[in-house]
Amino acid sequence: MALPYTNCFRLPRISTRCHLSVTPIRAQRAVSRVFACLKTSDPAIHREAKVGPLLDRIKWDDKGLVVAIAQNVDTGAVLMQGFANREALLTTIFSRKATFYSRSRSTLWVKGETSMNFINICDVFLDCDRDSIIYLGKPDGPTCHTGSETCYYTSVDEVLNDPQNDCNTLALTTLYSLESTICKRKEEISSNFDSRPSWTKRLLLDNKLLCSKIREEADELCRTLEENEDPSRTASEMADVLYHSMVLLAQKGVKVEDVLQVLRLRFQQSGIEEKSCRNK
Amino acid sequence: MALPYTNCFRLPRISTRCHLSVTPIRAQRAVSRVFACLKTSDPAIHREAKVGPLLDRIKWDDKGLVVAIAQNVDTGAVLMQGFANREALLTTIFSRKATFYSRSRSTLWVKGETSMNFINICDVFLDCDRDSIIYLGKPDGPTCHTGSETCYYTSVDEVLNDPQNDCNTLALTTLYSLESTICKRKEEISSNFDSRPSWTKRLLLDNKLLCSKIREEADELCRTLEENEDPSRTASEMADVLYHSMVLLAQKGVKVEDVLQVLRLRFQQSGIEEKSCRNK
Repeated sequence: MALPYTNCFRLPRISTRCHLSVTPIRAQRAVSRVFACLKTSDPAIHREAKVGPLLDRIKWDDKGLVVAIAQNVDTGAVLMQGFANREALLTTIFSRKATFYSRSRSTLWVKGETSMNFINICDVFLDCDRDSIIYLGKPDGPTCHTGSETCYYTSVDEVLNDPQNDCNTLALTTLYSLESTICKRKEEISSNFDSRPSWTKRLLLDNKLLCSKIREEADELCRTLEENEDPSRTASEMADVLYHSMVLLAQKGVKVEDVLQVLRLRFQQSGIEEKSCRNK
Repeated sequence: MALPYTNCFRLPRISTRCHLSVTPIRAQRAVSRVFACLKTSDPAIHREAKVGPLLDRIKWDDKGLVVAIAQNVDTGAVLMQGFANREALLTTIFSRKATFYSRSRSTLWVKGETSMNFINICDVFLDCDRDSIIYLGKPDGPTCHTGSETCYYTSVDEVLNDPQNDCNTLALTTLYSLESTICKRKEEISSNFDSRPSWTKRLLLDNKLLCSKIREEADELCRTLEENEDPSRTASEMADVLYHSMVLLAQKGVKVEDVLQVLRLRFQQSGIEEKSCRNK
């Protein structure tokens, strides 16, 4: 395969002596080292000096800040939201670790400098107004200080339905909401929880049935192409393939995020190989 | 199948006479109608009055605002970021249309009230500090005023590599970055763009090969369960199933988002059926 997959996990484009180790140094020291890098005569560093004009174009608010949203590159989960000033963004771009400005402590902080749960940056994106940024990256572990995967675990609908609930419903998008439901069914089986039967449980209890369904659904997906069926049939059959495959993943204890990481690393590698071929 | 899938697209829990039509009424009028609803004697409305204590718990900043991030429930894409005051959040919760407070115009605005590209809310999530919220929903169309799917289309890495580029790289997570690459390969074929061959192109040019690969990879995924292989093999084979199936989707002009919408609506329906059974 030779797919370029160049948006994610680019290698740092600054020389190794400029590569910031933010563990366990303080964030302010990290910034000093970034500026030290910018003063060298290394051509790679001069290329990085382009960052100045970029930072000048950002619409910092009256406190010199923009909203910074950290997002998991594989799952799309919004991990946390903080603020960045010029130094925080500069540090993030060069160190490839998500860095924020703490308004309460009036200082930079590298997410993970205490917990070691860094967010490893793939790329940073600006919005159309240039006053909001996304730190797209891969977290080393749970992002929230509570140990939760993300900071967004209080569902307004849940609170309104039951104000006494424990507010522990992560903001999950479709694929991960389905994954969560499948995992709950698996837990119900292993804990002999008495609930009504479900198709997911039948599949989890019968590997032969599960595998025959996966092969059958894959075949039906292919036939939508071979027999020139309507695209809506393709979407429906692909949904079946995904759902049944996800039951198998749950059965094997594999997360969808693990699969996406495999895909990302695989296509990142083929992207590097493709670039290398072009340069020959 | 009887999977509950209750996190998304809950039916509005207020009576139909309270269901806000935000098209084309002005947002301020929408708020008035919300408050009018709260004054009725309908028990369903009184239940909704629980929203007051919830709003009281939010840490509004010195301007009475919190950061509000709109996220696509199916793809996980961060669509836009704005701010919400108490009225904007209240309107969003009741009307199920993402509503913000415009700091420049000092007024509420329902996203889509002009463009008709509303963001239909599934749920709202608060972060651990209760000063940042996610509007998790399904957009009717492009979110950005530029016509872009999301407002985040300027990649810092792209700008630093080539400051003259057209800044049109969406912040895509792994699955959608791969989908974008596959679609580019398809466009290269149809435009006879002279680039080096790739496995994706071979698959796109040979439906028989593509379908045989999908069936083969589905079989290999199943064998990781049947033959008790290591979970890392399962992740790898599932990555193969996903990639090859996504090439078929591209061949048929079907988006991954379409498939996820099928899954969401299907499991929302089974969730409603399950609840209905429980209430019998």
